[in-house]
Amino acid sequence: MTTPHPRLSLNQATIKHADLATALRVTADAGLEAIGLWREPVQEVGLDTAARMLTDSGLRVTTHCRSGFFTMPEGPERRASLDDNRVAIEETATLAAAGAPGSTAVLVLVAGGLPEGSQDLAGARERVRDAIGELVPDAAVAGVTLAIEPLHPMFATDRCVVSTLAQALGIAADFDPSAVGVVVDTFHVFWDPDVLTSIAAAGQEGRIASYQVCDWKTPLPADVLLSRHQPGDGVIDFALLTRAVEATGYDRDIEVEIFNAEVWSADPVEAVRRTAEAFDTVVSPHLAGR
Amino acid sequence: MTTPHPRLSLNQATIKHADLATALRVTADAGLEAIGLWREPVQEVGLDTAARMLTDSGLRVTTHCRSGFFTMPEGPERRASLDDNRVAIEETATLAAAGAPGSTAVLVLVAGGLPEGSQDLAGARERVRDAIGELVPDAAVAGVTLAIEPLHPMFATDRCVVSTLAQALGIAADFDPSAVGVVVDTFHVFWDPDVLTSIAAAGQEGRIASYQVCDWKTPLPADVLLSRHQPGDGVIDFALLTRAVEATGYDRDIEVEIFNAEVWSADPVEAVRRTAEAFDTVVSPHLAGR
Repeated sequence: MTTPHPRLSLNQATIKHADLATALRVTADAGLEAIGLWREPVQEVGLDTAARMLTDSGLRVTTHCRSGFFTMPEGPERRASLDDNRVAIEETATLAAAGAPGSTAVLVLVAGGLPEGSQDLAGARERVRDAIGELVPDAAVAGVTLAIEPLHPMFATDRCVVSTLAQALGIAADFDPSAVGVVVDTFHVFWDPDVLTSIAAAGQEGRIASYQVCDWKTPLPADVLLSRHQPGDGVIDFALLTRAVEATGYDRDIEVEIFNAEVWSADPVEAVRRTAEAFDTVVSPHLAGR
Repeated sequence: MTTPHPRLSLNQATIKHADLATALRVTADAGLEAIGLWREPVQEVGLDTAARMLTDSGLRVTTHCRSGFFTMPEGPERRASLDDNRVAIEETATLAAAGAPGSTAVLVLVAGGLPEGSQDLAGARERVRDAIGELVPDAAVAGVTLAIEPLHPMFATDRCVVSTLAQALGIAADFDPSAVGVVVDTFHVFWDPDVLTSIAAAGQEGRIASYQVCDWKTPLPADVLLSRHQPGDGVIDFALLTRAVEATGYDRDIEVEIFNAEVWSADPVEAVRRTAEAFDTVVSPHLAGR
């Protein structure tokens, strides 16, 4: 097997059932240089221990996943969510400082869906903007970029009311790019007739905080949340999207993030090997300098 | 039970398992004044017979569903699709002439997905534009409006590469509004951050050929094609969307079109009754003049 591409980062969700120690070990053992972490496995061992483990692994950290979920109206539930987001900001800063040089302090935000009983998408979207406005001072102090991730419109009501890159950029526009960026995830945005325009705009504004790749294939599985596939296993044009992101000057790590029952049931070592192979086949050829 | 709203049209797909005779009978018996027809049950009895049956029913016809599926590259398959679309145009004209006064000659077009093995969404979208360009002269002669229906982005690759109203309007822009319009279907467009702007634009351009209502609810069923619900059973804000369509001056019939295994398994009489009731509860209150 060839050496994995130096810009490939394994998002930990791809090996969801591995604990942090396993995730770090199999990622480093496979020759990858970077990883995107998730809050739950980090919290399982505690932040300080997680930070030490990350340092020991020699890996860069590329994102901390994930926070957000702040579409509810004012009240104790909203306050609790914002407080938890502040904890996530601190986690992100600590981990980025503990990761190898080149680590990035990027906290991925998934907005949340419609509150129970509500039909008011516009209102929920405004409350996302308000929540980010409240968190920006904390993010700025911590040196963390809040990365708004638009999710595919099929998740608009139950998971993320931010559905397009243009919409994410519209929210981000109120804030400094060092504090608020966007995630470009191929699965969520490839269908968008305006995707190339939006990627170019995001790049021009310095807003691309993370580029994530995974594939789309139909028929969708019964649980559509698990319909993410290895790059190359579906119909997404990774040449088109990767070149568009590269053309903006984005030169940082690229995560592969898969939610897929079959991938999750595989041995993590094998899942990482497959990921590196898929990346090398359909993404690497479109990256500058390789 | 109260009289159904005079602008309610039952799209025949809502009672998918009923043949044409049954569909016409239960729709008229329930006191509805209009119906949207599907090609298969019409072809089952033959066009001339179907036209006579429609005349006898006293119902208006509001759409003929559906044609399109012309994303494939040039070749015999594409020619066959365009020929079939020409047949559908003739069917639409014949049925509209046979329906009660106020019938509209509207042929609903679903673009089709990516051709097998293709990842080229932009190319497929251009071929939709080209196909419509080829069909416009036939539509104009027949007095039929080709109605481009954007489908929810979750269908972008396997069913319809036209995903937003703005995109449909972009294709329609090349043609006269009498020949090419769009379908506004709440299920497909409600999530779109630009939906109100697009509805207003569609109205201003005289492009709203059909307004269809049904609801969105999560979790989605295993077959996402069957995830359409009676208005009021999900999270769509029918006040917002119906008022936006009314505000454009749209004053024609409004179809309820449900694809849902549970609705299909019900007695058609009961399904029509439930449809009229749902419409009266969540759509009628937002219509002018009632």
